[in-house]
Amino acid sequence: MEKKYVVGIDIGGQTAKIGIVDARGEVLAQTVIVSNKHTDAGEFVDYLAQTVNTLIKQTDVEGQIRGIGVGAPDGNYYTGEIQGAMNITWCGDKVIPFAEMLSKATGIPVSLTNDANAAAMGEMTYGVAKGMKNFIMITLGTGVGSGIVIDGKIVYGHDGFAGELGHTCAVRHNGRHCNCGQNGCLETYASAIGVARTAREWLDMSDEPSSLRGIENLTSKDVYEAAKHGDQLALRVFKFTGRILGESFANFIAFSAPEAIVLFGGLARSREFLEDAIVDAMNENVVFLWKNKVKLLFSSLKESDAAILGASALGWEL
Amino acid sequence: MEKKYVVGIDIGGQTAKIGIVDARGEVLAQTVIVSNKHTDAGEFVDYLAQTVNTLIKQTDVEGQIRGIGVGAPDGNYYTGEIQGAMNITWCGDKVIPFAEMLSKATGIPVSLTNDANAAAMGEMTYGVAKGMKNFIMITLGTGVGSGIVIDGKIVYGHDGFAGELGHTCAVRHNGRHCNCGQNGCLETYASAIGVARTAREWLDMSDEPSSLRGIENLTSKDVYEAAKHGDQLALRVFKFTGRILGESFANFIAFSAPEAIVLFGGLARSREFLEDAIVDAMNENVVFLWKNKVKLLFSSLKESDAAILGASALGWEL
Repeated sequence: MEKKYVVGIDIGGQTAKIGIVDARGEVLAQTVIVSNKHTDAGEFVDYLAQTVNTLIKQTDVEGQIRGIGVGAPDGNYYTGEIQGAMNITWCGDKVIPFAEMLSKATGIPVSLTNDANAAAMGEMTYGVAKGMKNFIMITLGTGVGSGIVIDGKIVYGHDGFAGELGHTCAVRHNGRHCNCGQNGCLETYASAIGVARTAREWLDMSDEPSSLRGIENLTSKDVYEAAKHGDQLALRVFKFTGRILGESFANFIAFSAPEAIVLFGGLARSREFLEDAIVDAMNENVVFLWKNKVKLLFSSLKESDAAILGASALGWEL
Repeated sequence: MEKKYVVGIDIGGQTAKIGIVDARGEVLAQTVIVSNKHTDAGEFVDYLAQTVNTLIKQTDVEGQIRGIGVGAPDGNYYTGEIQGAMNITWCGDKVIPFAEMLSKATGIPVSLTNDANAAAMGEMTYGVAKGMKNFIMITLGTGVGSGIVIDGKIVYGHDGFAGELGHTCAVRHNGRHCNCGQNGCLETYASAIGVARTAREWLDMSDEPSSLRGIENLTSKDVYEAAKHGDQLALRVFKFTGRILGESFANFIAFSAPEAIVLFGGLARSREFLEDAIVDAMNENVVFLWKNKVKLLFSSLKESDAAILGASALGWEL
């Protein structure tokens, strides 16, 4: 029987999304399971495999699945392993041969990459980067991830871990401490957590009136809501965040001369407060060759579909 | 007749080196002409073409040349043009369709790229990066150039200008002014000119005794000689330069996860004073994944051959 469908799986810290996708990028069926209830990888994989097989059966496409593509934090395309994903309860600092385990449990070939690379494949195959051969995908979520596309292909590098742009240095001196052990990483400023951190710092440093004062466990969503209501401090937090992003993007452009930088993820939904600051800082800092030439794009894929579609694109390679 | 030779041409601000190369990377014959006597590109190309044809005739390989590969500052692989090379007397801010002109004048197909990319091809084909699929070439000369190799291929990017790592920002605030119009570019610190600039700044800022005091038009060569003789200020200048390089390399690694960074060019000959500082700063600043894993290599090709060999490697593609 012809194998004309693929399965895309997006694994996050809280949930795993699973979808069955056809060659035109239509998601025929999808489901979500929790991903943080297991501490044993084997048990999670069994649970996931069961869910995948049930979905395949319900969709009536048994025997027609070409492959399973998986996007996961710290996923390595070369080895098929998830390596030291601290936000995944059944991984932590361990190395999980995930592709192999899932392939055994489902009887279907599995290919795996990290979540930002999967998002980049999704944009390239079905999204705003369709037809582009050179672009950089930046995922602005809890952290900052990246997927780099050169000549139509994801850059994996020598060891499969290329594209850790969230951990390039954005602030060299007195930079914020990052979970990775370094200081000043882009991620400590330009992620959802970074935005909340900036707001808290600024509230502490002055007595400027702001609707953000007194909110416990302030999140980037609070800052977004305050900005929506015209809160000046909140608006400046986004401007500052956009500026840091734009400065970093200027450096990234000098590396691979992309046609566009594509933003994706929760924080990218604050586009109205970020976009101008990013574009200005990017064009001010970039080499003259590229001034006002590199596009800044925002993902157009439905967030729920994008991750599945991106991961599924890997399945066609199998 | 089988075309089993290529011509490699390296164009610099003062001279152009021309060589005839066989498939094993043997330079059969070579010559040098001045490149800064003409202000008209057409006249220079005619002079160059004459020299090439004479060399071919003298070497008795007429009709056996597969192609000519050219490495030139601001050379664009996609268009074959030299675009705004300020240090080239017959270019300046103009756009010169160099590949087309030279091909017409010699009757031989011509392929062109920038000098750093040519150097990277040379190292990959014949030098310390032989067999490597992922590395970054950094040329430390008057300026700082770069050639990035991913998956065995030079990265050209969307417009052919990828790899301007000398113009990534090394010092964000109060950085030195760069010829490119930006401030704080890596090139303003880590080039031959940058080293001299650091030494001059430090001499001005203190009255620390140094053998460098009183030297007019201080150059990086003076700093090197002083370091050789144990001059403490000169030694610290190299340490500082190495640290800036290492910090930047840590960011480059996060982009493409290379197997090695390869240094080439005049300033790379100060290896004894730079190497430890670079390696230390690189490993201190890089994401933990790559700590002590990415090699720092120095070009092993004879400088006179390397440029010709690198450019000639392009000739085989024709």
